[in-house]
Amino acid sequence: MYDLIIIGAGPAGLTAAIYAGRFRLNTLMLEKMSVGGQIITSPDIENFPGFPGGISTGELIEKFKQQVDDLGLRIEPEEAIEIIPDKNNYLLKTGSNSYETRTIIVASGAEPKRLGVKGEERFIGRGVSYCGTCDAPLFKEKAVVVIGGGDRAIEEALFLARYAAKVTVIHRRNSLRTSKILEEKARQNQKINFILESTVEEIFGDKKVENVKIKNVSSGAFNILACDGVFVFVGIKPNTDFLNNILHLDPSSFIITDQDLATSRKGIFACGDALKKSLYQVINACAEGALAADSAHKYILGQ
Amino acid sequence: MYDLIIIGAGPAGLTAAIYAGRFRLNTLMLEKMSVGGQIITSPDIENFPGFPGGISTGELIEKFKQQVDDLGLRIEPEEAIEIIPDKNNYLLKTGSNSYETRTIIVASGAEPKRLGVKGEERFIGRGVSYCGTCDAPLFKEKAVVVIGGGDRAIEEALFLARYAAKVTVIHRRNSLRTSKILEEKARQNQKINFILESTVEEIFGDKKVENVKIKNVSSGAFNILACDGVFVFVGIKPNTDFLNNILHLDPSSFIITDQDLATSRKGIFACGDALKKSLYQVINACAEGALAADSAHKYILGQ
Repeated sequence: MYDLIIIGAGPAGLTAAIYAGRFRLNTLMLEKMSVGGQIITSPDIENFPGFPGGISTGELIEKFKQQVDDLGLRIEPEEAIEIIPDKNNYLLKTGSNSYETRTIIVASGAEPKRLGVKGEERFIGRGVSYCGTCDAPLFKEKAVVVIGGGDRAIEEALFLARYAAKVTVIHRRNSLRTSKILEEKARQNQKINFILESTVEEIFGDKKVENVKIKNVSSGAFNILACDGVFVFVGIKPNTDFLNNILHLDPSSFIITDQDLATSRKGIFACGDALKKSLYQVINACAEGALAADSAHKYILGQ
Repeated sequence: MYDLIIIGAGPAGLTAAIYAGRFRLNTLMLEKMSVGGQIITSPDIENFPGFPGGISTGELIEKFKQQVDDLGLRIEPEEAIEIIPDKNNYLLKTGSNSYETRTIIVASGAEPKRLGVKGEERFIGRGVSYCGTCDAPLFKEKAVVVIGGGDRAIEEALFLARYAAKVTVIHRRNSLRTSKILEEKARQNQKINFILESTVEEIFGDKKVENVKIKNVSSGAFNILACDGVFVFVGIKPNTDFLNNILHLDPSSFIITDQDLATSRKGIFACGDALKKSLYQVINACAEGALAADSAHKYILGQ
């Protein structure tokens, strides 16, 4: 019987583990993909307090993980598939095991939303990507399109511009939804162009991406733009499918909690990007991890 | 006219400044004491994610401040005395100036609570202290008393034991209210003793602290313990006196906010230890700073 199982080893889950370890809770972490969560698809992080000049996200995650390792916590490469209430405890099933635990912290994060247009699925890995950090080097001196107008889209456009010859940002609104500092950097970058009030309607190609069809949402006019890569940054989808029948989720499947991060079920807490909240930043995910662990600890003390 | 004035330069205020700077808000910071807030009275921080093996709080604060400096933000050594609503804006008065601003983030923090016993005020600076980090070296090879049973008390007891010959922790409950890892460390330390279910009723001495009178709350018996120092860690009091007539505070004078850290007045946000909340940790203060800045930014965009 574990005191606590943490599902997901991104910034939220890792910080929850640091706190759980210091509370001396008998804790198991599960991570289905790789430690770090979706933030590892961003190259650098400049606004995490404590790192003047910024730090690569890989390095920052390595530091978080070191703190977890120092406390002797295990991270198993397993995916949580089902949570079954069992009296005051829970049975957590993964693909290969079934674990008993008193409490659970869901830190399962989120993943990029698909654009949902023709050609997108077909060209994934052949020009369509959701991660500039991962794939930018494949587009050296090529032309790429970035879809989206938020922080993530602009950050990725700036990173892609280090490799690509030309980066075209396509956004459906008439202004970006990003910090001024990022917008200024992007506007000053000679390689980056903007097509606003426009959507990508289809992705074409033979063996790989060759063109996108762009619609101006104001005039209704269509255009074809030649490009080698299409990077999609149009929002995130929480990894909460396995919680559907067990926790109260909002219409977009984000987890609803109270202010101490308790979910609709006693003993289950949540933190990080799977949460319904206002600000999806690493520093906030970390703080939520600390609070979720504190709440789980208090719950166990009160049992 | 400023876009934003941040009151207080602890972890919450400094992170708010990092985010405000990146949003390119015209921002002024005010700090009445020294940059860092009450955390600088703790020696080290081991549970801030990103620093395996821990970091001295002074060093961590220096890193936060460097990030603020890099963004070109000014920190004025002034104390906020009064906030006066002025149409959609605010007039903020300090001892020497009066500033106009569109939004305010209150990150004024908190300070240690007094014990409230006879002799306490009289011996401040002559044996009575609220900061082990600051004063521990003055008690080399001496006997000190630590009053309190929370994380802060035990952390300070451990730090004091590096200097003092003997550290006696006096706590009114029959168990500590701290993490197991801290309790274990303290229990294993040969210099640290515990007197539980007991309160300090009076502090005696001639020119400086010489004894404390201890009451066992279960038996009612009194005892005198000789000591050279008395370190008081019995909770915190928010620095919110200047907000009394302007913001909705709880009965202990902590600021009440919604989940986006908006206070009861439009355009005024709050973060850090002056908030009513569940967990008073540096990582949480930082995350609140980021969220308060984001909320202020969104408020200005919507004006």
